[in-house]
Amino acid sequence: MAVASPAHAEYTMIPDEPRTITASGLASRVGGVLEGDGDCVIRGVATIEDAGADDVTWVASPEILPRVANSRAGVVLIPTDCAAPEGRIVIKVHDPDSAVCKVLAFLAPPRDVVPPGVHASAIIEPGAVVDGAAVGAHVYIGAGVRIGEGTQLYPGVFVGMNTVIGRDCALWPNVVVREGTTIGDRVVIHPNATIGADGFSYLQRDGAHRKIPQIGTVAIEDDVEIGANTTIDRARSGVTRIGRGTKIDNLVQVAHNVKIGEHCILVGQSGVAGSSVLGRHVFLSGQVGVSDHRKIGDGVQVAGGSAVLADVPNGQTVRGSPAIGAVQFGRREVALRKLPDLIKQVRELSRRVEELEHGEGG
Amino acid sequence: MAVASPAHAEYTMIPDEPRTITASGLASRVGGVLEGDGDCVIRGVATIEDAGADDVTWVASPEILPRVANSRAGVVLIPTDCAAPEGRIVIKVHDPDSAVCKVLAFLAPPRDVVPPGVHASAIIEPGAVVDGAAVGAHVYIGAGVRIGEGTQLYPGVFVGMNTVIGRDCALWPNVVVREGTTIGDRVVIHPNATIGADGFSYLQRDGAHRKIPQIGTVAIEDDVEIGANTTIDRARSGVTRIGRGTKIDNLVQVAHNVKIGEHCILVGQSGVAGSSVLGRHVFLSGQVGVSDHRKIGDGVQVAGGSAVLADVPNGQTVRGSPAIGAVQFGRREVALRKLPDLIKQVRELSRRVEELEHGEGG
Amino acid sequence: MAVASPAHAEYTMIPDEPRTITASGLASRVGGVLEGDGDCVIRGVATIEDAGADDVTWVASPEILPRVANSRAGVVLIPTDCAAPEGRIVIKVHDPDSAVCKVLAFLAPPRDVVPPGVHASAIIEPGAVVDGAAVGAHVYIGAGVRIGEGTQLYPGVFVGMNTVIGRDCALWPNVVVREGTTIGDRVVIHPNATIGADGFSYLQRDGAHRKIPQIGTVAIEDDVEIGANTTIDRARSGVTRIGRGTKIDNLVQVAHNVKIGEHCILVGQSGVAGSSVLGRHVFLSGQVGVSDHRKIGDGVQVAGGSAVLADVPNGQTVRGSPAIGAVQFGRREVALRKLPDLIKQVRELSRRVEELEHGEGG
Repeated sequence: MAVASPAHAEYTMIPDEPRTITASGLASRVGGVLEGDGDCVIRGVATIEDAGADDVTWVASPEILPRVANSRAGVVLIPTDCAAPEGRIVIKVHDPDSAVCKVLAFLAPPRDVVPPGVHASAIIEPGAVVDGAAVGAHVYIGAGVRIGEGTQLYPGVFVGMNTVIGRDCALWPNVVVREGTTIGDRVVIHPNATIGADGFSYLQRDGAHRKIPQIGTVAIEDDVEIGANTTIDRARSGVTRIGRGTKIDNLVQVAHNVKIGEHCILVGQSGVAGSSVLGRHVFLSGQVGVSDHRKIGDGVQVAGGSAVLADVPNGQTVRGSPAIGAVQFGRREVALRKLPDLIKQVRELSRRVEELEHGEGG
Repeated sequence: MAVASPAHAEYTMIPDEPRTITASGLASRVGGVLEGDGDCVIRGVATIEDAGADDVTWVASPEILPRVANSRAGVVLIPTDCAAPEGRIVIKVHDPDSAVCKVLAFLAPPRDVVPPGVHASAIIEPGAVVDGAAVGAHVYIGAGVRIGEGTQLYPGVFVGMNTVIGRDCALWPNVVVREGTTIGDRVVIHPNATIGADGFSYLQRDGAHRKIPQIGTVAIEDDVEIGANTTIDRARSGVTRIGRGTKIDNLVQVAHNVKIGEHCILVGQSGVAGSSVLGRHVFLSGQVGVSDHRKIGDGVQVAGGSAVLADVPNGQTVRGSPAIGAVQFGRREVALRKLPDLIKQVRELSRRVEELEHGEGG
Repeated sequence: MAVASPAHAEYTMIPDEPRTITASGLASRVGGVLEGDGDCVIRGVATIEDAGADDVTWVASPEILPRVANSRAGVVLIPTDCAAPEGRIVIKVHDPDSAVCKVLAFLAPPRDVVPPGVHASAIIEPGAVVDGAAVGAHVYIGAGVRIGEGTQLYPGVFVGMNTVIGRDCALWPNVVVREGTTIGDRVVIHPNATIGADGFSYLQRDGAHRKIPQIGTVAIEDDVEIGANTTIDRARSGVTRIGRGTKIDNLVQVAHNVKIGEHCILVGQSGVAGSSVLGRHVFLSGQVGVSDHRKIGDGVQVAGGSAVLADVPNGQTVRGSPAIGAVQFGRREVALRKLPDLIKQVRELSRRVEELEHGEGG
């Protein structure tokens, strides 16, 4: 049962004024070298095109430096080996992309934080260990659950019995994690995602579908991120596994017994059917489907909207529905564009051959 | 914290008997002219084909009037300039489609209504202003939230800190709206939708994906409707915007920094990738994908299942994967149907040319 | 209001040790004939390739028996008419697929069970009848709801007014069922699914979309299963119907007024648009779309990723986007592969015909 409720004044940060930082403050925060007026005040981060006078923007690589000419940005982060465009306040850094992440983190507005302890309205079943975790309002935690230090469960989260969650995770509101799931450290699960629902598998007997018990589990390794309203099914037996560092976008379906390797990216609305195996560093773009029992090699890239029906060897880029090599797909697209003309050409050729056959030609 | 709980007798309407209305009552309610028996009793609304004797049906335009001949409908709403089919009870109205909406609204059965005030089980953080709103059971409202008069939050809704919601909105059960979101008036968000989860964007460094902080927000303008289990991500910085009057169906993905213009329609399971911009009155049919950083002009229509990979100028209709002009797509489909025959024709032509070359022809 | 809360010790099973069973125990449990060491201890079920020494595996049909040679499985379930591979512990059964389901059910680890009665934190409106049901934490049940004996509502479920749910159903956490829905017996609805949200239909007037009231309902017949984060919309008027025994996977969209026949299968991320009708035993593979007002006959099979834009007669298998007969699709794919070469052939033929025309040939 609920153990202790923190005072409500502690429950969330009271919103601050929007943060600001000067150009010189920025330079020291990102470890860069400032050229220009250090007193310029920055309130936000924006792209080269969208930035205003109180925004910082960034130039990831020298070839896009000329685009800065038309930008209204107050400060520009540029690579160390670039010359500052005239009249600009710049900060030279080794890696502008990483530097801008530091700025974003600094300028981030306050957000809801679940304070350590258990909210009075949360329900914790016997045998659950949540010391050091932060359990929000209306959370339900089943028997035998173990949750690591620093992990936040936002309001409305359900954690089924015997699930183990590591340290410093965030389960956003209304996430459901069913029984027996294993979740590593620093895992983020966005709102309304469902982890560990039954896999979809039936036996057809006498014209009906009999449910095959789904007694396996889900294992989510360290540093995985799982998008809002995404579903990851438990295995029939054994485990559905999401490898370390893999990032999954919103509304993605990962079926029972799928294994996804380390550091993969699954973009929104993609889906992987039962028992398929993805290697390391696989990239599925949006709305990609991978059919069941397939093997997708390391480093494979799949273009948006493709349907992968066959195994794909390491390192390949595939595209189409059914997916084929991207080069072959490109050639086919070019050919398709010519097809209506080709039909006319063949009709014309046929006429000419007929004329030749009847000796009406030359 | 919870302020006051209304008596439970007030919490929902007690279900009425199903409503009925006579033909003459209907006529006065829709401002139409009755021809035929005004005492005929109507209990429902149905299509021409499905209607029974106690249903009203409607004829949107004169050319579908002949289909009424086989309908069992008790009453028919027809356009003012149509002649009543013989033996039918009709109501002549200026706009039958609008009239039938009025009838539907009148015949609607009772549904759950959250009464004004805050349910005893809801959690409201300090500094939130919800006067005049209706806050249901197990709702969580973060610090600094402001909710307008007449807005209903159904049970299980989460509203993150500093979010501002206008008047007369409905957030159906288990909707999650994260911190800092701005929502206009008369916005409807269906169950289990997620607004303001982090955008999906990472920096690749040393073979891993480092999260780029997502410090922007979401703005949803007046009269927008958002479907069940749909996800709309917050911006990296700046704002993800849904324009006034736009209607979004279920299971749709709208990524970070997308801008959707006014009065667009996004049908179920469509998705728009990061930073793309849709004009006004854009129509995305079901399961359409729009890739990132694209510009889709005003009035563009995209056929179901298409993948839009390029910018689309105002007013175009596109189709296919990758999407091309609809006319071009149609021509290509016709050509594709001829392709197997074309291959045979070319083989035959080749043979005939060979014969000519060897002087066996003519 | 909440009526009674069971003691928390009863609320969930305390996790057991993992279950084990001997080969002879297995044989008697599945009604099979053991050949080999009956004392072999089994802890799990796995495929032929994945099984270890304490797993049972199964051979569905004689032709896959040779694959057992390389399996490490401790026990193998084989069809009665197969000879046991040498040195193997086997159990001969009439139907290995069904037998393995019995084993899975026996070896299943404990899972959360909602005990009969109403949790103290649940909210039950007046006039709801839930005797014999099991109502979990933070559940909300509207006025006039009736729930049958043995049905479990997991934490966070919302059931809108006047909904009727049969016996022995399971509504997993955070499921939302809106008002007036009818659900049969033994129906399973997975987490975060949404039943009965408004259909997506608008009237275009003066450049804006006016909402058409959605006053119909949803009817879900006996033995239906509905996946996590799936959405089934209420009808505009009348009913959206899911036929007996139909199984629907995760993230599927079923629009307003759709009728789905008995014993259909809808695989993940498929969608059926408004008013379409599916017959019995229809199979939609993953990411299939069916457009609105279509009629899909009994036994129709649709390949993954297809877009069905036209009616499909009974028994057909279709594929593609737009979907065509599977045989025709196969022929077209073969032809497409030849297209780039065909273009070259025609160019070459054209040259040769020109030569013939100019008398440069033979």
